[in-house]
Amino acid sequence: MANPQDYNYNFYNVTFPAEYVAHVEINRPEKLNAFVEEMWQNLALIFRKLSHDPNVRAILLTGAGDRAFTAGLDVQAASQGFLTTPSSDPARTATANKRHILDFQECISAVEKCEKPVLCVLHGISFGLALDLSLSCDIRFSTTTTQFSVKEVDIGLAADIGTLSRLPHSVGNMSWIKEIALSARVFGSEEALRVGLVSRVLGGKGEAVGEALKLAGLIATKSPVAVQGTKEILNYSRDRTVADGLHYTAVWNAAMLQTQDLKDAMLSGLQKRKATFSKL
Amino acid sequence: MANPQDYNYNFYNVTFPAEYVAHVEINRPEKLNAFVEEMWQNLALIFRKLSHDPNVRAILLTGAGDRAFTAGLDVQAASQGFLTTPSSDPARTATANKRHILDFQECISAVEKCEKPVLCVLHGISFGLALDLSLSCDIRFSTTTTQFSVKEVDIGLAADIGTLSRLPHSVGNMSWIKEIALSARVFGSEEALRVGLVSRVLGGKGEAVGEALKLAGLIATKSPVAVQGTKEILNYSRDRTVADGLHYTAVWNAAMLQTQDLKDAMLSGLQKRKATFSKL
Amino acid sequence: MANPQDYNYNFYNVTFPAEYVAHVEINRPEKLNAFVEEMWQNLALIFRKLSHDPNVRAILLTGAGDRAFTAGLDVQAASQGFLTTPSSDPARTATANKRHILDFQECISAVEKCEKPVLCVLHGISFGLALDLSLSCDIRFSTTTTQFSVKEVDIGLAADIGTLSRLPHSVGNMSWIKEIALSARVFGSEEALRVGLVSRVLGGKGEAVGEALKLAGLIATKSPVAVQGTKEILNYSRDRTVADGLHYTAVWNAAMLQTQDLKDAMLSGLQKRKATFSKL
Amino acid sequence: MANPQDYNYNFYNVTFPAEYVAHVEINRPEKLNAFVEEMWQNLALIFRKLSHDPNVRAILLTGAGDRAFTAGLDVQAASQGFLTTPSSDPARTATANKRHILDFQECISAVEKCEKPVLCVLHGISFGLALDLSLSCDIRFSTTTTQFSVKEVDIGLAADIGTLSRLPHSVGNMSWIKEIALSARVFGSEEALRVGLVSRVLGGKGEAVGEALKLAGLIATKSPVAVQGTKEILNYSRDRTVADGLHYTAVWNAAMLQTQDLKDAMLSGLQKRKATFSKL
Amino acid sequence: MANPQDYNYNFYNVTFPAEYVAHVEINRPEKLNAFVEEMWQNLALIFRKLSHDPNVRAILLTGAGDRAFTAGLDVQAASQGFLTTPSSDPARTATANKRHILDFQECISAVEKCEKPVLCVLHGISFGLALDLSLSCDIRFSTTTTQFSVKEVDIGLAADIGTLSRLPHSVGNMSWIKEIALSARVFGSEEALRVGLVSRVLGGKGEAVGEALKLAGLIATKSPVAVQGTKEILNYSRDRTVADGLHYTAVWNAAMLQTQDLKDAMLSGLQKRKATFSKL
Amino acid sequence: MANPQDYNYNFYNVTFPAEYVAHVEINRPEKLNAFVEEMWQNLALIFRKLSHDPNVRAILLTGAGDRAFTAGLDVQAASQGFLTTPSSDPARTATANKRHILDFQECISAVEKCEKPVLCVLHGISFGLALDLSLSCDIRFSTTTTQFSVKEVDIGLAADIGTLSRLPHSVGNMSWIKEIALSARVFGSEEALRVGLVSRVLGGKGEAVGEALKLAGLIATKSPVAVQGTKEILNYSRDRTVADGLHYTAVWNAAMLQTQDLKDAMLSGLQKRKATFSKL
Repeated sequence: MANPQDYNYNFYNVTFPAEYVAHVEINRPEKLNAFVEEMWQNLALIFRKLSHDPNVRAILLTGAGDRAFTAGLDVQAASQGFLTTPSSDPARTATANKRHILDFQECISAVEKCEKPVLCVLHGISFGLALDLSLSCDIRFSTTTTQFSVKEVDIGLAADIGTLSRLPHSVGNMSWIKEIALSARVFGSEEALRVGLVSRVLGGKGEAVGEALKLAGLIATKSPVAVQGTKEILNYSRDRTVADGLHYTAVWNAAMLQTQDLKDAMLSGLQKRKATFSKL
Repeated sequence: MANPQDYNYNFYNVTFPAEYVAHVEINRPEKLNAFVEEMWQNLALIFRKLSHDPNVRAILLTGAGDRAFTAGLDVQAASQGFLTTPSSDPARTATANKRHILDFQECISAVEKCEKPVLCVLHGISFGLALDLSLSCDIRFSTTTTQFSVKEVDIGLAADIGTLSRLPHSVGNMSWIKEIALSARVFGSEEALRVGLVSRVLGGKGEAVGEALKLAGLIATKSPVAVQGTKEILNYSRDRTVADGLHYTAVWNAAMLQTQDLKDAMLSGLQKRKATFSKL
Repeated sequence: MANPQDYNYNFYNVTFPAEYVAHVEINRPEKLNAFVEEMWQNLALIFRKLSHDPNVRAILLTGAGDRAFTAGLDVQAASQGFLTTPSSDPARTATANKRHILDFQECISAVEKCEKPVLCVLHGISFGLALDLSLSCDIRFSTTTTQFSVKEVDIGLAADIGTLSRLPHSVGNMSWIKEIALSARVFGSEEALRVGLVSRVLGGKGEAVGEALKLAGLIATKSPVAVQGTKEILNYSRDRTVADGLHYTAVWNAAMLQTQDLKDAMLSGLQKRKATFSKL
Repeated sequence: MANPQDYNYNFYNVTFPAEYVAHVEINRPEKLNAFVEEMWQNLALIFRKLSHDPNVRAILLTGAGDRAFTAGLDVQAASQGFLTTPSSDPARTATANKRHILDFQECISAVEKCEKPVLCVLHGISFGLALDLSLSCDIRFSTTTTQFSVKEVDIGLAADIGTLSRLPHSVGNMSWIKEIALSARVFGSEEALRVGLVSRVLGGKGEAVGEALKLAGLIATKSPVAVQGTKEILNYSRDRTVADGLHYTAVWNAAMLQTQDLKDAMLSGLQKRKATFSKL
Repeated sequence: MANPQDYNYNFYNVTFPAEYVAHVEINRPEKLNAFVEEMWQNLALIFRKLSHDPNVRAILLTGAGDRAFTAGLDVQAASQGFLTTPSSDPARTATANKRHILDFQECISAVEKCEKPVLCVLHGISFGLALDLSLSCDIRFSTTTTQFSVKEVDIGLAADIGTLSRLPHSVGNMSWIKEIALSARVFGSEEALRVGLVSRVLGGKGEAVGEALKLAGLIATKSPVAVQGTKEILNYSRDRTVADGLHYTAVWNAAMLQTQDLKDAMLSGLQKRKATFSKL
Repeated sequence: MANPQDYNYNFYNVTFPAEYVAHVEINRPEKLNAFVEEMWQNLALIFRKLSHDPNVRAILLTGAGDRAFTAGLDVQAASQGFLTTPSSDPARTATANKRHILDFQECISAVEKCEKPVLCVLHGISFGLALDLSLSCDIRFSTTTTQFSVKEVDIGLAADIGTLSRLPHSVGNMSWIKEIALSARVFGSEEALRVGLVSRVLGGKGEAVGEALKLAGLIATKSPVAVQGTKEILNYSRDRTVADGLHYTAVWNAAMLQTQDLKDAMLSGLQKRKATFSKL
């Protein structure tokens, strides 16, 4: 079992509700789970640790409280940063901005780079950073009352922590992507499901978290060699030609097919029994 | 206010129905807005001018008349070009063809390259070039009676002005893309919405144009720095890896976050009032 | 007419049910059309031959029997290969594995590389290799009772014959792609249609094969120059930037617009009669 | 023969010293051929015209006078532009800057995009823009007294009109590229030849221009289909994988091998006589 | 020892002059080793077999006789193909041409795709196809009297079997590449060495073959896991970004570092003795 | 002035010999500066700090002692890691290996990612990791007695920390790259200079360090906005198409041209005096 003590970070509850399953809860409900800098730094620390933790095979990310997955950036807190200028020289300010954005992106991308699948439940208010963050996850569920918005144009900027780079590779309706990104309008789960932003809509937060934990639990029973390879190859292929994806897959599986898991999974399948797999 | 006199081009009506909103109407309704060469040359001239016009922040493209957004290429007119051969040497003819296609593509791509978001309403007959053209736009609306068709195979050629290059990056159902491109069959708005070719279907042309103008008007009230950055980054990311998209976004926003708009938008948000933004 | 004698391969029935239409039937119904090595080697031989056969313009791929398009890899047969290790040295085993995977991939990719459009009907059990194979086809139909599953994680491996490389370029819902690839859960046609994996769902196998043959027949009446160019450009553009897609299209059509087909198709269109096209 | 009247542009002498050969001379020797905006705009107009002129098959670019190919940007003239700021808003200034740079780049890239091979002779002072410009040419000659410098860091900017994007694809010594780009030190022809920036060093300007004209003349006697294809494919392949280069070449030559030139060249080769080729 | 009987192909002598070393000699000296179609088909068959032959670790490719590595395509033989037109329809002829070029390219690329390093000695006349072929090899030696020429423009075509796609990735002087490809001029070994086309120039054919065999023999004593990985990663990285190259290398070596060879090589290095490696 | 106390890391001396110049010396001369894990971890920490240190504008990397820049990996120390196997399951071992390689690569790439230019002097023994490391630097100098070797094949592996991914983008002679990488033979500075691996060869270590410090000092006097932009754009362009390089440059300079440095540098140039620039 993973050690909860290893995951003691401000603004997060990390628990292990089932074997090989981690649950990361963003925990600032009194502020609708809005993000201050320490939160995204800690997010990266948590997911980098989970990535190599042999006791973890699937992860669920949710927000505490009934009202919001996250309302996005804590604008009040961030406004100090945004409203002061690092330098009177625009090129020097640009350099400081670039470093800051790259650092912030890197934190959110830690979720995508985590070797284990990450599921998330978007419930209630899911604005701005909620999209950046959930698009770094592998599987997105929402509820009948989720309110989504790519909010950034309304605070005078183009979303820069991942939403605009990942949406065109996650959703198959470019007209819709541009409509919601350019208008910042709020939309609901029915629309999110129809265009392909989420893969399931559940009744309420409780039900959604339950279903997500069930799916995480299912994934965690499978060979971690197979599961982690599947995540890696899908992400690699998403960004490249089919030919490059195929070739990479062959090199990847050249090693991975040598796993004992394959033999165990195959035999247990033929013998109609359940296999267990050693840690990875 | 933009000057309508600057946009006096044959086959087009260009008007400015709201602040910062331009409306470009293809105006050859007696021929179902079918395109002759002067039309695509003028289209490029108009959109290149709109791209840098500080009085314009959102653009709507529609077709005049009730019957068609556009029936596509004016085949009768084009047939002269297609049926005569520039040279008896196939390599020299190929060179002439390539130059001609690249020139034609460049005209249609001027819509995509326009720095401002372009919405379009596909109504009535929307064949062939209607797809090439609308896929160069950012947001596509249609009506309950729109008839779409990727018509080109029926005149003996593979669509070469953009449809085949942009469809796989705009719609998330490759089986459907190939079905309609290989068969040239006519399909309607319900199907277009389901597969993700359009983002909204409205009752009739009037209603669709009204909604599109409303959306264009909304976008035009937002920071042009934020809006134009959003369009640019989405188009850049669509074509590249997520990693490259993120890096480009950081470099782009290194400058753009220095805008006064961000401060104004953020403060007006916190203070629940409406911001206005200087020209871009 | 193509010569059926040229297509006499174990495990396949190849017939020519209409002019310019080939029908390839996977024929091992007693084993749910599960694949042994000879079957994928023969598949490649058949499709490489069809690719250049001037008597063929559209191809339908189906599975014999009522129960399955294909249940995937014949695990019992494959298990011998999977369970024996080519070498005691993991690097040498990796080399053997890589060669084997690349060879297997090459066989399945022969369907994608075939110059003529390939339609397929997924009916009944469509597990594992059924996805790899159908994603190499251009157009996918299914029936109301089709059972799909990306089954590979359940036998301890990441799918490596094409599913993971092609899904992100074929379906516009990354959350769903990861859900079904990581969980191996069975899903049906309604879901497949909604997310964009298939473009049509028909009542039963008979109806589906009938509709697919009708569509194949329609495509076969069109100019093969136009049809094959459309397939080629869509596949090229899927993998590349819009700019590269456009440029490639211009170079491709520089030659292809010189075809007599274009003149014939255009004139027959203007004159409301039907054109026929010479072999390609 | 091309018509010199068509090429009457300020700051340039365009002559046609031999059949199918154009000679473009930058003509502002009293200012060491330093560039003002009109000059790069005219450069683009000239090369776009030459690109499609059937009477031109090879082009030589040189600078008038004994002292300089070009001393680069006319800093005195440009300083007005550089020292005034388009807007007090850094984001709006950035937008204006980006448009200006893209426009300037487009002008210099017109030389690379010209379908015909462009040779250049770098003599005397060849600073800053001299590199951007010559790297857009296909073949570079210099003289024993040429003084090269990537001068831009010395005026406080990273070279942005092409030098930094083209050097890594033109010269095979990255250490040297960075040394001269970061230090702005002046270097001579011996060094330029050793690292691969030029392909020949001649004694003086006269001799260099003579040799370049001889080479241009030789190229102009060859099949323009073969010559222009060679330039195109080399530029395409430089930027892409070998696999993509090969595939593009096959599609390109699918049309180009149909030329009468190939038959004429081949037969004249076998029959030891000289072929002539029709215009392109 | 590899079995010479397995390599009995017209126009080639295949011998095994040292342990793990194969020597492939193009054997049509009476025609200056000029290529007819059977020759490139056989070349591919030989190199595909060598690629997987566990008794081969390094390969030398040379041309029989004193006069030529190869004079290139047998133009007299090819002229029949070039001078007859497969179809009166330029699009159909283009299709036939494309298939033919892709097939021919595939044969030459079999040398690059061969898993084992291929050295070649270019001696005497080395025109046209000699470049295409040697650029598919890994290491190129020449002699003081080698005469090189990218001859294709002189027969009216752009070189399409690999020279133009591989030169920009093999030689670091783009000006020189274009000069010799556009002029077809003959050049010698001194120039080839200076620009980086070959890595060594030896006195005569005998000496060059001797040195090449010595180098092949040296490579053959090393771990085949290390050697074949080095070839693969260099080719992969040549075509991609440094970041992609690094990532691929990590995945490749994840398996390959598990080899016994590493332990044996490392220990034998520490113990100053010679390791031997099992077959691959 | 940068604070030497901030750079107190085992195995390194970091000094600041001139304004804005840092000198990083690998300091394990008694072991020929061979690397143990702590050394590459510290290297990354040092260069990440230097990257953002406003008191540093140019960096020199050298090795302590007379005998070696570095003899590479400390094989004796590493052999423990290499010779023990993390898991009996080859797939689990592969996962551990991949993580280890990616971590090691990341440390060495920290030099390339450092925003400031990094020069290095390769003296004496420069084997294995010496190449990986120096290829991550921007500018390479060597001495008349430097002994280079891509040593990795001799210990049974393909070099995986950067050499194989960066060589094809740094040196313009692929035949030579493969020759030295496949044979592991030792070569000297004359050869390194000829093929383009280094840009200068100096008499001895003292002279080389002196010249490198002079060049670093010169670079440090220039606008850091211009210098850092030049490094960034060259690295970006090296990996991408010319078109993408140009576009990125325009977006980069859209902000950077707004620097006061440009005005200061330009005016001081016109006024023949020396500019100073504020920190970055």
